[in-house]
Amino acid sequence: MTHATGTLYIISAPSGAGKTSLVKALLEQTDNLRVSVSHTTRAMRPGEIDGVNYHFTSREAFVSRVADADFLEHAEVFGNLYGTSQSTVERTLAQGNDLILEIDWQGAQQVRRAMPDARSIFILPPSRATLRERLTTRGQDEESVIDGRMALAVDEISHYVEYDYLVINDDFNTALDDLKSILRSARLNVSRQVERYQALLTALVS
Amino acid sequence: MTHATGTLYIISAPSGAGKTSLVKALLEQTDNLRVSVSHTTRAMRPGEIDGVNYHFTSREAFVSRVADADFLEHAEVFGNLYGTSQSTVERTLAQGNDLILEIDWQGAQQVRRAMPDARSIFILPPSRATLRERLTTRGQDEESVIDGRMALAVDEISHYVEYDYLVINDDFNTALDDLKSILRSARLNVSRQVERYQALLTALVS
Repeated sequence: MTHATGTLYIISAPSGAGKTSLVKALLEQTDNLRVSVSHTTRAMRPGEIDGVNYHFTSREAFVSRVADADFLEHAEVFGNLYGTSQSTVERTLAQGNDLILEIDWQGAQQVRRAMPDARSIFILPPSRATLRERLTTRGQDEESVIDGRMALAVDEISHYVEYDYLVINDDFNTALDDLKSILRSARLNVSRQVERYQALLTALVS
Repeated sequence: MTHATGTLYIISAPSGAGKTSLVKALLEQTDNLRVSVSHTTRAMRPGEIDGVNYHFTSREAFVSRVADADFLEHAEVFGNLYGTSQSTVERTLAQGNDLILEIDWQGAQQVRRAMPDARSIFILPPSRATLRERLTTRGQDEESVIDGRMALAVDEISHYVEYDYLVINDDFNTALDDLKSILRSARLNVSRQVERYQALLTALVS
């Protein structure tokens, strides 16, 4: 058995859909699965580790990677640059790992253009009321602040149709099993299995 | 929640791969999944039920369906005609059921032409030795009879690359979970989810 090239997954969701917890559980329970660590120019915060939370990098180094067209996607947020390195992604996949990119719909559009074999998953809350509730329980917020978060979430959700899979996060374990089935079935794809079971296939048809 | 159109699955395997037991378990453990019942002109055997084992039909009626181009695939075996009715398949899918066709590589090629959205799965034994063993334990056979069965199996296996998925039946439950993940993930496909969750999606983006 040799290892096969991994699959790249894009996972997007509005705030309040539960993406972060789902991806964390998926990583804990799945072999040969990694999550992409972005490059950023923002300052490291207390407790953060370089290479774990982010690859912390200077603005010069970041811009030079942009010039080398190494970023699958990048964006500026509050004056800081964030990006996903294509060379890092391709090295991870070549080692036989599946790789998750947690990015928004704009990043997803950029990644699909560069890596058309990527599979994309959109996670949705089970109802509008649940979404609003999840966006509220973070503190005692003004209605206008919650309305603002809802508007951002609805904007993100409006792009669901661009994705390959829709997972509804009503029951956490059901949604987790949904995600697992997507990863498991992709590994059964004939092109991956042919790489993995070369020796068996040769023996069977000889 | 409205029901979405089902997915058509083609499952092929050489004798000895364990397809029949796997499909039986899959049907028992999966909602909204059916197996296609073929039409045949051969005589009903004791214990068989019309509409369950086969749709038993006269040669005239069969030939008339062929003329109406209603068979997704058909073949003559030992003087009897066997075929899969496209109208029956489409009715089952429209009711929101997934449907399995257990057919060989030749039938699979015909079905793919007529129904390009069908997903095809090939089940393999874990080794050549296991395959030979499984083809032997049916009785005390002559070596030449076993060799003949092996040759037929190898001929079927040689078409594995035409399929979307390869499942290796080494451990029965692992292979069964593999098949379940293929069916589960297909149901998460955006086009199916959009049919199923119309009301939710409308509420979320309005």
